[in-house]
Amino acid sequence: MKDNKEVKDIGITVKKNHDFSEWYTQIVLKAQLADYSPVKGFIVLRPYGYKIWELLREQLDKKLKETGHENGFLPILIPESLLSREEDHFSGFIPEVFWVTQTGDNKLSEKLAIRPTSETLAYQIFSKWIMSYRDLPLKLNFWNSALRAEIKSTKPFIRNSEFLWQEGHTVHAEEKEAEDEVYSILEIYKILIEQYLSIPTISGFKSDKEKFVGAIYTTTLESLMPDGKALQMATSHHLGQNFSKPFEIKFLDNNSKQRFGWQTSWGISWRLIGALIMTHGDDKGLVLPPKISPIQVVIVPIYKSKDKQEVLIQSEKISKILENDGIRVYLDARDEYTSGWKFHDWELKGVPLRINIGSRDIQNRQIELVRRDNFEKLAVSVDDDVLKKISDVLEEIQNNLLIRAKHILDEGMVTAKDYQHLKDIFKTEANGFVKSTWCGKLECEEKIKEETGADIRVIPFKD
Amino acid sequence: MKDNKEVKDIGITVKKNHDFSEWYTQIVLKAQLADYSPVKGFIVLRPYGYKIWELLREQLDKKLKETGHENGFLPILIPESLLSREEDHFSGFIPEVFWVTQTGDNKLSEKLAIRPTSETLAYQIFSKWIMSYRDLPLKLNFWNSALRAEIKSTKPFIRNSEFLWQEGHTVHAEEKEAEDEVYSILEIYKILIEQYLSIPTISGFKSDKEKFVGAIYTTTLESLMPDGKALQMATSHHLGQNFSKPFEIKFLDNNSKQRFGWQTSWGISWRLIGALIMTHGDDKGLVLPPKISPIQVVIVPIYKSKDKQEVLIQSEKISKILENDGIRVYLDARDEYTSGWKFHDWELKGVPLRINIGSRDIQNRQIELVRRDNFEKLAVSVDDDVLKKISDVLEEIQNNLLIRAKHILDEGMVTAKDYQHLKDIFKTEANGFVKSTWCGKLECEEKIKEETGADIRVIPFKD
Repeated sequence: MKDNKEVKDIGITVKKNHDFSEWYTQIVLKAQLADYSPVKGFIVLRPYGYKIWELLREQLDKKLKETGHENGFLPILIPESLLSREEDHFSGFIPEVFWVTQTGDNKLSEKLAIRPTSETLAYQIFSKWIMSYRDLPLKLNFWNSALRAEIKSTKPFIRNSEFLWQEGHTVHAEEKEAEDEVYSILEIYKILIEQYLSIPTISGFKSDKEKFVGAIYTTTLESLMPDGKALQMATSHHLGQNFSKPFEIKFLDNNSKQRFGWQTSWGISWRLIGALIMTHGDDKGLVLPPKISPIQVVIVPIYKSKDKQEVLIQSEKISKILENDGIRVYLDARDEYTSGWKFHDWELKGVPLRINIGSRDIQNRQIELVRRDNFEKLAVSVDDDVLKKISDVLEEIQNNLLIRAKHILDEGMVTAKDYQHLKDIFKTEANGFVKSTWCGKLECEEKIKEETGADIRVIPFKD
Repeated sequence: MKDNKEVKDIGITVKKNHDFSEWYTQIVLKAQLADYSPVKGFIVLRPYGYKIWELLREQLDKKLKETGHENGFLPILIPESLLSREEDHFSGFIPEVFWVTQTGDNKLSEKLAIRPTSETLAYQIFSKWIMSYRDLPLKLNFWNSALRAEIKSTKPFIRNSEFLWQEGHTVHAEEKEAEDEVYSILEIYKILIEQYLSIPTISGFKSDKEKFVGAIYTTTLESLMPDGKALQMATSHHLGQNFSKPFEIKFLDNNSKQRFGWQTSWGISWRLIGALIMTHGDDKGLVLPPKISPIQVVIVPIYKSKDKQEVLIQSEKISKILENDGIRVYLDARDEYTSGWKFHDWELKGVPLRINIGSRDIQNRQIELVRRDNFEKLAVSVDDDVLKKISDVLEEIQNNLLIRAKHILDEGMVTAKDYQHLKDIFKTEANGFVKSTWCGKLECEEKIKEETGADIRVIPFKD
């Protein structure tokens, strides 16, 4: 039997505010979210980590389908000639491309790129599918992985050479429709990230320097992590006709006039899992918001051999009540671990709510709830509406995590009165967001970067 | 408005029994299941085709989760040194491997294979995860795509250089458990294929010559297509300790003795969509079994401008009734197409049941059902239980398709009395299955192939 002596080995051995980077890596590995692959920069997702991705995907997929998007599949290899058809796009991605140059022993006549993103391949094909205004709008989404070689430092979920993501690609008859799509997708992302992941974001534009290569403009959701670094959570691009012209995505409008389509593309990746870990985790491990937690409630029966049956029966009863209501519940009746070991293990894995059930609880006609977000303990009478109580607590946890995360964002943001003030701030503090005006031109952006080290992360929307 | 003159262009222009191969290709393209990618041998899935894959995936995923399997993610690149660790396996796959040799402008020091299958990568990682009997069984599944260069002829869904599939990989403490897993997975596949795809299969073993490279034995489900050619539908492999030894998948058993694990791997691919097309399709197009049809019922309102409102209201009413019961229904109220055009379009796309609603139907208090499988028309009174009637008809269609497909299999199978008879059969008939005994050795298998051209497709299980 594993006992408490082993708890130390499985637990997180550094403090979050002491060595943030090591703390992050330990959570990824010890909570069994992911592991390293033999190829540097690539990771494997273990079932617990993949399940979070599945839950995220399910939510977003539902919202995309409700708004008229359909899924498809694009092959992973793109001929060099196609990838290079839009020049800015090509030069932006080329340093990161994985190139296939042979199959078996045969050298290929043309190199094939493993997709760094699929604009070029998708649009070459769209041009065959779109003939008439009746074929528009075309609103497609693809759940796949993309590969971009990370030469420098890599970090699970945040910077990897292969990442899971979705890429949406749409074509519209009118520019206005494409612009509306850009914003409505960003809004869908914002709801997903704030309401499911409990992470607040700032919405706005990327500067021209930071926008997607080939786009007219890029809209973005930016978050601030507890180490004071910004993290880009989602982007939605207005492509204008920058791709429809070289790829000849043309249609006959209802006046039989041939016109080029207006396009958007947009995506989120498993980076959101990295943001989850960083934003909510604590010194004991992961903390997951209930809505995207693979296990929402874990029940730990606490018994000696004489009262084992009684305790298990009660535990199963509570488990069934929750399960029947669609709550993701796990009854941890494993005999080979002590309850102390289990407590630490589920804390490490970030399960939002634990229920302890022992024979004394049964005598007192109660169960004990332990919240993962603040370790608060609540005794709940089994004569009350247990399901309602637990559902309410889960909702409170979801909200509390968002409120706490808002504090991180608020506290990490200061306003610069003028450029001198901005420079002063970055002299003493390299972290956080600084709100500031600027001239709006690339030369100012470069000067700010040079003089302060700061990047322009987001130009917030005017509300 | 598109009218009936255009029907001919969108429809299938060859007969199934006249030019099977061209018929197949036309269905793939014209029913908008898939399209060709610019790289030879690769295809794109359009939403209609991808939706079939999603429905298949959903069903299988549910069954795998119910039986204790979990999903994960494996990266797509495998170092050459790892791929080559199990010799038979490596030599079996090497001619088909796509090799990455550079990123950006940098030549890699070691070639990376795009996964042709993930045994080697998964098992290198499993060896880190498995320490004790408590970590077993490990039952993982991966939904991804695999790449194997098809040099010769390619065919959408059947032979492509990249294909969507799932690959399951399990590790067990005992050989018996691994063997049970092999058969229980094959049974799950059989239920999926027979009950959802309405395609009958023969279960059995592959010969040693045809088994998975690296396996002890391979079990398979084989079907017979209407052109008399066999199609392998699913395989489930007993790997024994062939991989656990070179990959050092070892565990401490509960007597603290170190032992090697016993393993299985298994998979199905989008080839099943190809089988669906071939098995059920007819001269008018695709015919889909209701359980995996993206649209189960299509409603076509038939109206002139004066009765449009009335017909649409009734159509929406019926649509809602079906939708509320979870039936995938589409109300085709597009004004820019005639109803004749719509009939042909939905026949081409294989929607199992069409409902026609016109003003005369409303007067007669009825709706007209048209079955896709046999074109039978049924008038159903709206005063009857419309939902029940339609659900029953969908079930009948599902069953009828299976019965029809069983005829193909039965008619395509003959029994050879002796080897001379076998040779005679293949002199006059190159198609279909022939049941025969054989010596069980590779030399016999090779002699049969040489003298008759026949392959041993399956050694049926003894019931």
